[in-house]
Order: sequence, then structure tokens, then C-alpha cells
Amino acid sequence: MNLHPFLVAIEVGGTVAFAMSGLIEATRKRMDLVGVFSVAFVSAFGGGTVRDILLDRRPLFWIENQEYLWLVLAMVLTTPLWLKTLRLKFGGHLMEFADACGLGLFAISGATIASAADMPVLVSMMMGVVTAIFGGVSRDVLCNEVPKVYSDHRPYALCALLGCGVLLALDAIGLPLPMSTLAGIATATGSRLLAVAFDLRLPAWPAQRD
Amino acid sequence: MNLHPFLVAIEVGGTVAFAMSGLIEATRKRMDLVGVFSVAFVSAFGGGTVRDILLDRRPLFWIENQEYLWLVLAMVLTTPLWLKTLRLKFGGHLMEFADACGLGLFAISGATIASAADMPVLVSMMMGVVTAIFGGVSRDVLCNEVPKVYSDHRPYALCALLGCGVLLALDAIGLPLPMSTLAGIATATGSRLLAVAFDLRLPAWPAQRD
Amino acid sequence: MNLHPFLVAIEVGGTVAFAMSGLIEATRKRMDLVGVFSVAFVSAFGGGTVRDILLDRRPLFWIENQEYLWLVLAMVLTTPLWLKTLRLKFGGHLMEFADACGLGLFAISGATIASAADMPVLVSMMMGVVTAIFGGVSRDVLCNEVPKVYSDHRPYALCALLGCGVLLALDAIGLPLPMSTLAGIATATGSRLLAVAFDLRLPAWPAQRD
Repeated sequence: MNLHPFLVAIEVGGTVAFAMSGLIEATRKRMDLVGVFSVAFVSAFGGGTVRDILLDRRPLFWIENQEYLWLVLAMVLTTPLWLKTLRLKFGGHLMEFADACGLGLFAISGATIASAADMPVLVSMMMGVVTAIFGGVSRDVLCNEVPKVYSDHRPYALCALLGCGVLLALDAIGLPLPMSTLAGIATATGSRLLAVAFDLRLPAWPAQRD
Repeated sequence: MNLHPFLVAIEVGGTVAFAMSGLIEATRKRMDLVGVFSVAFVSAFGGGTVRDILLDRRPLFWIENQEYLWLVLAMVLTTPLWLKTLRLKFGGHLMEFADACGLGLFAISGATIASAADMPVLVSMMMGVVTAIFGGVSRDVLCNEVPKVYSDHRPYALCALLGCGVLLALDAIGLPLPMSTLAGIATATGSRLLAVAFDLRLPAWPAQRD
Repeated sequence: MNLHPFLVAIEVGGTVAFAMSGLIEATRKRMDLVGVFSVAFVSAFGGGTVRDILLDRRPLFWIENQEYLWLVLAMVLTTPLWLKTLRLKFGGHLMEFADACGLGLFAISGATIASAADMPVLVSMMMGVVTAIFGGVSRDVLCNEVPKVYSDHRPYALCALLGCGVLLALDAIGLPLPMSTLAGIATATGSRLLAVAFDLRLPAWPAQRD
């Protein structure tokens, strides 16, 4: 289960991005210390844990690499040092940005790992989407918000799917791993950021007589 | 992990029934395309995934048989072709019918697989119930409805339990698999449909001074 | 996977305590029979199931020891015989007491088992906390209450963490298992009961400009 160092970097990046999105949401809600901790942990590790359970990868990634736990712990404890500064600089966009980065990074991490485990294309794409959205869904549920993936009608899961598609297509035509993963991440995160920036909305299902 | 072809047919039937119930619910809520997709997938695969995780059956049934994924995908994409017709013909009963069929088929699938894995009777019955209700519970949660299993006081989990009981009893006295499973499905689905048709209600727990 | 008899006793105690807390909550809500059953089962087995899945311990503890299932079944069926008496004697405190006992017992059970599986300290502590709170969280969600772990601002997960810390510290300095586990349980359950009795509250996260 040794990952390519490149994939480790992607996983760390996704963990940091989602932990940050959890911290922003939890502190905005004025949760107590334990609440902030648990939201940060669940956001950071939720998606990857579900991915590992579905694919039967054991030990789980945060049990095998307990540095991840220490990293998130350190992020939570140092929050007062950096969150305010970042917030003043980026305002409300910070949350959307962290969320979009986590989405892209975890989508590609899920799809690559599933693909490396010889899963067929459709399964790999689903793993990418599940890995990408589960952390964010749990974060929103814990913070008592309707999950972003359902509430805002701007594409979210679709961006993850798009990124996984690009990754697997480039992989199939033989591009080296770093290039195909980078392209996949850029597609997923980029399309989500564009969707937020231009307020793109998915069409609702055509109305039907009931 | 090769299942008897009869059990495969049951699993496919349950998947189609729950996918349909998810499609009906999601399109009624006017979800966007991604919402409709995810509700259909979660309804169809939720119960079986929990069953496989609890029993440690890997790969998961929809990873091993990716035809299931393609089947549900095809159902979602062709929804406009058949859902309206079915709805005009059966009206509001369609949802209850699809749901009751899924309940019975997945209950028996869960109990048979647990029983084949040498689980004791009580564990097999619980697996049947969990497999039967989890897809529907997730569907209702995603659609922001109080799960049917709790909200309507008509028997739901109890019908699944009854069907599993019939299956295991007939199995114990030596009936061949197709007969015992058919009797179990008929009991679970039939008792649920009767409960809905005659509006049977479970008695509430006797009131107590607090 | 043979546990020290002492650990079995802890697990049984925690199961009984959480099953009781589930019974109290579900009967208070006047759920029907099936509702009462399922809340009792989920409260009793939720935390341990998540622990076993995360640590990949199979078969699950309630599949391996199906006596647990019969025990909870017997508790539910005999509820009318004992719940009223206990309630008259202890009033509203009964729920808090059962919940605190379950919290302490499952926290120590989770941390000990993780530690025996050679998990590092931080992972063992997280396993203790997850095992301790998951049953109660599921109970509250099924009963349509905001989970205790988030809603009341009195320490809950923190008490579990404290108990696990005491357990692992005493274990590290070489105390025998029965002493370290007893001290851990006493710390977790005791600190929770004190927090409830004296209405201790965690400070909210310092306010921040948004």
C-alpha cells in the first residue's frame, strides 16, 4: 500500500484544505473547543475513511500515517494565529476556495487509488466522487447546514466527476501520473471555482405531472 | 463469493426497485440532475453496501458486478421515457409498490447471504432487516424526509423481519432455496403492501409517567 | 481476538448502559415497538460497530458474541418490569447516569482494544472517543434530537478523551490492566457526571470578525 510520493502530497493537500474548511465553518458557528476539533477532524478524514472502507484498504490512511492526525491537531491549535489574517485577506471566498481545493484533491486521490487497485473505470469515478464529497457532507451535517452538495444548485459532485474523467482519460492514453493527476485536480477545482464565480446552476429536473 | 443465480436475480430486482423509488422521490422534489443521480444510486446500493461491510464481504457487490452500476445509470438516463407513463397508470401507489418490493427483495437477500456465511439465526435476521431498510432510510434522509421506517407508524422493519423469519424457518425444515426465498419475499413485500392498503398501525409504547 | 475477561465485562456493561439510555429516550418519545427496539439496538451496538469497522476487527463483536443481541432483546422485552421502578427512584437523572456509564465504559473499551492492536497513542485515544460517542450520537439522531455531544455545551467527548488519557498513561507506567481500566472508566464517567451535576460548560471559541 505504498503510495507514489506524488499521491501522498495530494492526500496531505486535500486533508489540509478540508480541515481548513471545517475550521472556518466551525468557528463561524461559535462552536466550543471540542466542536471545532471534531468538525475539523471529520472534514479532513471523512472522505478518505469512507474511500478506504469501501475499497477495503487497511489500515486506514490516518491510522497508517498518524502524522496526518498530528498535522490537523497542530492546525486546530494554531488556528488563532492564522485564520484571522487569512480571513481579513480573502473574506468569504476563503471557505469556497478551501472547499474547492479539497474537492479536487480528494476526487483525484480517490480515483487514482481505486484505479491502482484495478477497479473498472466507472467504479473509480464513483470512488473519486464519494471521496471528494463525503468529508464536506459530514462537515455540513455536523454544523447543522444542508450539505452544499444538495443545497446550492451549482455543480459540486459534477466537478469532481469531471476531474476524475479527465484523469482517467489522460491516464488511459499513457500520460505520466504527475501530469494526469495535475490536470484532473485543475479540472475539478477549477470548474468548481468557475461555477461559484459565475454562479452557474444545474437545470432542475423537468417538471412532471404528479 | 459466487451467489446462486437465483440470489443474483433477487439482488438485481431489489436494486431496480429501490433505484426506482429513489428516482420517484427525487424527481418529485425537483432535484437537479446530480441530485437525482445520487439519490437513485444511494437508494439502490445503500442497503447492500452496509450488508457487505458488516459481513466483511469484499469486493462490495456493486464493485464486483459493475453491471449493477451501468443498470442504474441506464435507468436514470431513460427516466423520462418510462416514469411518466408508469405514474399516470399507477399514481401515488407506484412509490409504495417499488418501496415494498425493494424491502422484501433486499431483506431476503441480506438474510440468505448472512445465513450462507454461517451466521446464527438472530444475526441473519438482523442482517436482513438492516439490508432492507438502509437504502430507503438513506433515500429519505437525502430527500430531507423523516425516514419512512420511523415516521409512518405502519409496520416496515417488522415486515422485513417477518419475511426473514419465514425464509429461515422454511430453510431449516429443508425446503429448496428458490421456494424458501420466494415465500420470504412474498411475506415481506405482501405484509408491507397489506399494511399500507389497510392502514395497519403498530401500537405505540404504553404511556409512562415521567 | 480473545479479549481479557475483564474487557468483556466492560463491553457488556457499556452495552447494557447504552441500551438502557436508548430505551429511556425511545419510550419517552412514545415510539412504537419497532422504534423502541431499533433505538435500543443502535445505541447499544453503534459505537462498537464503528470501532470494529475502523480497526478491521471481524467478525463484529455482536456477531461473534450473539449473547449480546439476546441480552439487549431480553432488556427490551422486560422493559415494563423494571424501567418504571428505576424511573420513580431516580427520575430524570437515570438517563444522564446510564449515558455517562456507557460513555466511560465504551471509551475505555475502544482505547484498550486499539492499544492492544498496537495502534499509536493518538489513534487509540481517537478510537476511544469515537467508540464512546457514536452509540449516543446515533440514538439522538434516531430520536430526532440534536446529539448531546454538540448541543449541551457541557464536556462530553472531552470526558471520554480524559478517561482514555488516564488509561494509556497508567498503562504506560506498567499498572496491571484491571487497575488502569478501572481508573480510566472512573475518570471518564466521573468527570461527565460532575460536569452534569455542576453544570460545567466549555468556553465557546473566541468570537472573530467575519
